Amino acid sequence: MEQKLQEQWNGFRELVAKIGSYHEAVNLMYWDLRTGAPRKGSSTRAETIGLLSTEAFKLETSDEMGTYLQLFAQEENLAQLEDLDRRLLENVQKSYDQNRKIPEKEFKDYTVLTSKSETQWEEAKDSGDFESFEPYLTEIVGTLRKFVGYWGVKDTPYDTLLDMYEPDMTVERLDDVFDRLKKRLVPLAEAIAASEIVAHLPFLDATYPKEGQEAFSHFILKEMGYDFEAGRLDEAVHPFATGLNPGDVRITTHYHENDVLSAAFSSLHEGGHALYEQNIDPKLTGTPLAQGTSMGIHESQSRFWENMIGRSLPFWERYFGELQKQFPDQLTGVTPEKFHFAANRVENSLIRIEADELTYNLHIIIRYEIEKMLFNENLDVKKLPEVWNSKYESYLGITPPNHSEGVLQDVHWSGGAFGYFASYSLGNMYAAQMMRTMRKEMPNLDELIAQGNLLPIKEWLTEKVYVFGSAKKPSEIIFDVTGEELNPDYLADYLEQKYTSLYNLKL
Amino acid sequence: MEQKLQEQWNGFRELVAKIGSYHEAVNLMYWDLRTGAPRKGSSTRAETIGLLSTEAFKLETSDEMGTYLQLFAQEENLAQLEDLDRRLLENVQKSYDQNRKIPEKEFKDYTVLTSKSETQWEEAKDSGDFESFEPYLTEIVGTLRKFVGYWGVKDTPYDTLLDMYEPDMTVERLDDVFDRLKKRLVPLAEAIAASEIVAHLPFLDATYPKEGQEAFSHFILKEMGYDFEAGRLDEAVHPFATGLNPGDVRITTHYHENDVLSAAFSSLHEGGHALYEQNIDPKLTGTPLAQGTSMGIHESQSRFWENMIGRSLPFWERYFGELQKQFPDQLTGVTPEKFHFAANRVENSLIRIEADELTYNLHIIIRYEIEKMLFNENLDVKKLPEVWNSKYESYLGITPPNHSEGVLQDVHWSGGAFGYFASYSLGNMYAAQMMRTMRKEMPNLDELIAQGNLLPIKEWLTEKVYVFGSAKKPSEIIFDVTGEELNPDYLADYLEQKYTSLYNLKL
Repeated sequence: MEQKLQEQWNGFRELVAKIGSYHEAVNLMYWDLRTGAPRKGSSTRAETIGLLSTEAFKLETSDEMGTYLQLFAQEENLAQLEDLDRRLLENVQKSYDQNRKIPEKEFKDYTVLTSKSETQWEEAKDSGDFESFEPYLTEIVGTLRKFVGYWGVKDTPYDTLLDMYEPDMTVERLDDVFDRLKKRLVPLAEAIAASEIVAHLPFLDATYPKEGQEAFSHFILKEMGYDFEAGRLDEAVHPFATGLNPGDVRITTHYHENDVLSAAFSSLHEGGHALYEQNIDPKLTGTPLAQGTSMGIHESQSRFWENMIGRSLPFWERYFGELQKQFPDQLTGVTPEKFHFAANRVENSLIRIEADELTYNLHIIIRYEIEKMLFNENLDVKKLPEVWNSKYESYLGITPPNHSEGVLQDVHWSGGAFGYFASYSLGNMYAAQMMRTMRKEMPNLDELIAQGNLLPIKEWLTEKVYVFGSAKKPSEIIFDVTGEELNPDYLADYLEQKYTSLYNLKL
Repeated sequence: MEQKLQEQWNGFRELVAKIGSYHEAVNLMYWDLRTGAPRKGSSTRAETIGLLSTEAFKLETSDEMGTYLQLFAQEENLAQLEDLDRRLLENVQKSYDQNRKIPEKEFKDYTVLTSKSETQWEEAKDSGDFESFEPYLTEIVGTLRKFVGYWGVKDTPYDTLLDMYEPDMTVERLDDVFDRLKKRLVPLAEAIAASEIVAHLPFLDATYPKEGQEAFSHFILKEMGYDFEAGRLDEAVHPFATGLNPGDVRITTHYHENDVLSAAFSSLHEGGHALYEQNIDPKLTGTPLAQGTSMGIHESQSRFWENMIGRSLPFWERYFGELQKQFPDQLTGVTPEKFHFAANRVENSLIRIEADELTYNLHIIIRYEIEKMLFNENLDVKKLPEVWNSKYESYLGITPPNHSEGVLQDVHWSGGAFGYFASYSLGNMYAAQMMRTMRKEMPNLDELIAQGNLLPIKEWLTEKVYVFGSAKKPSEIIFDVTGEELNPDYLADYLEQKYTSLYNLKL
């Protein structure tokens, strides 16, 4: 690179790193609020978070940033950049465009709106009163329809929203993928519902003191290769993982004494997210490339560890004994097979976050179809409850008795996060597809798991997924790892195989 | 206030609040580093802290700030301000002057120097090698001598440094105060050393598991009136309290299983600091007045709770039983009187932070006299070990066997904190003087303590000290609370009374 250009590039990198510092501070403040910050300090803290977020936003959309981006977009300059630098540029340009295209006043109004709306949603959810929430949601959807216009309509308006969470994902692609998935999962769920297998699992009703659950979570995270010198495990009401920087990727979980499965699988899940961020190439540190490349790929890693590994029989063949050491009385007489069944039993449930590995995807498909109707067919928000209930009846055979357990159950829409839900099922599909490749490349995988030798799994994922951060797009990741594009059949195969065996089904 | 001026004032207040937000974020990051942040994230974290501190510094010394200060300094504008607003202005002006008077380049060099020096000190302390540290300390002292010139020499150069930690405190005043104190404490320490009372305290050698110590710390903090909804208790290697905002004032302590006294008194100490900041008038929130008014007054509150209350016999008459509940085996057969003696036994020690309530002040006087020599008599840094050792011999009758336990024992000088040490003894003197007034106003004080009724004490201190934050100067606080200026005799009286009784002395 020419010396003068190099100086400009250094200036650009410094600006990018500075923005990263603000985000690190803000993320620490959120982590702190959710892991035990005192209640009485929270309003002042909110102001501090607001201030630092605003400063970051100002830098992201500053004229200085615009000047840099323009400079490096010039062909003769772009030609001098390395591949990784171009990826960085592309990434920064995308956020810049996204943020600059919305008139400042409208952006601020929208921020206030979503903040009020989240509060209103909480109340509405408690009382099951959709009508009190409807005006907020109508305004949010209206605003987003307008924003999509500013950002530019891709193939369809909803495509524009999908792309924000899963770059380059389209309605056309998802329609096909979800359709194929639905066609195989709905009959499977029906066959299970009709099966006569009802397991007797009284140990699930025992009490499991927190200390033992905590010890098991620590143990299992170490087994996965989570680096406690580059992270820590705390408690939070809603578990999450947060990467403050690659040397500091924190996990939270929750311990329910009446539910031995919850914390274990939540730790595996958040541990999967954290492994991703802990193992990103250090040379990406200080740039926005040092993050997961999309919500879907991020979720594929949490689901990989939670489901592909954590809900497999070999896993419990190795680790059930460890759990039993913590809870010898509660788990007396229970076998790894029985525990494995408990971790995989299917119950058609109303609530997405309580759903099993199979029906979970149906919850997502329902949300995807509804969001598409809202943005591509101008569905009236007032009609949401009706549409919601009819889809639950048709895909899951159940109708919510109230809106709290129905259309009001998720926080996402109240914050304007339309286009996000698909990521969860994308995660499941990516994970199953990667698992199939891993099995081909590591034929002794089940043996390794049954021996508690999980590190080769972590290394495989590091080399093929983690290390790239956002320097590869999601479609590149899945293609480079598995040799083909996203294919929903692997998830369907995996689920069919698992459940026909568990429920003794004939499909 | 005229409307136009009011608008300017609002702008000034916003700027001040913004600076406060940066400090809150930085303080949270420090708290986090010291209470369990993962090791591998610390270098990136250091950069983030550096960035946000620099942003705060830029705002504090900005031309915008200068313009506001100039505007409100104009007589016709100043006349329109309320008393509290003037105090705020004065406080901000002082930091502004302090920071603007140092040429930027020299300030940055000094920051680098002290950072390197602290690292060098750690190594030097480990090996006892003063010579490797001496060049750094020489440069720091040299730079500070120059800075004093920039800031302006008060009565003497050392006065300028004292004023930074204890506003308006002077060498003239401290010479008198420390001289009077020394004259009474040195003979007292000698009398104790000569006394034949040697208590048999085998319970001090028992093992006290962390859980019980933690429970007792929580309990005693609640008894003091520490608000756990506006704070939290964590562990740190070096205990500290930090006020992020008035609704979030955190305490840390440490648990040594071989020392039952350490965590208890450290919690009382940090709890005292925290009570101060939790009870500052909420109307000062968002300004630098929402802090303790000086290091000395801050320390008076920690010492008040740790020593005046926590090392009193009535306190253990009430609370020894509670400690015994945690450690029934270890404390079997021990009486409150015996425990009280253990918490007050005097041993001439080489190490300041391990010193008892009496000799502690002699450690401080030694440092004060040495610092004064450095800045007012141009003492050569090379001669520090010699001066140090001879003063220890003459005041405490002991000579350090090595520099680690001598001149290298404290971190303060390596960071340039000259003028700070006096605060510790000022804290003791202020505390004893306030205690005397409290006893006059609450004649049944010992009874209240013995009943475990500590809240009236907290309320008394809130009303007379805490609520004002930095809106009153330290000299105003002590005068308004006790009706007279700082007077060292009350500390001497208190110590004489305590120790003649404990050691059965005749003075």
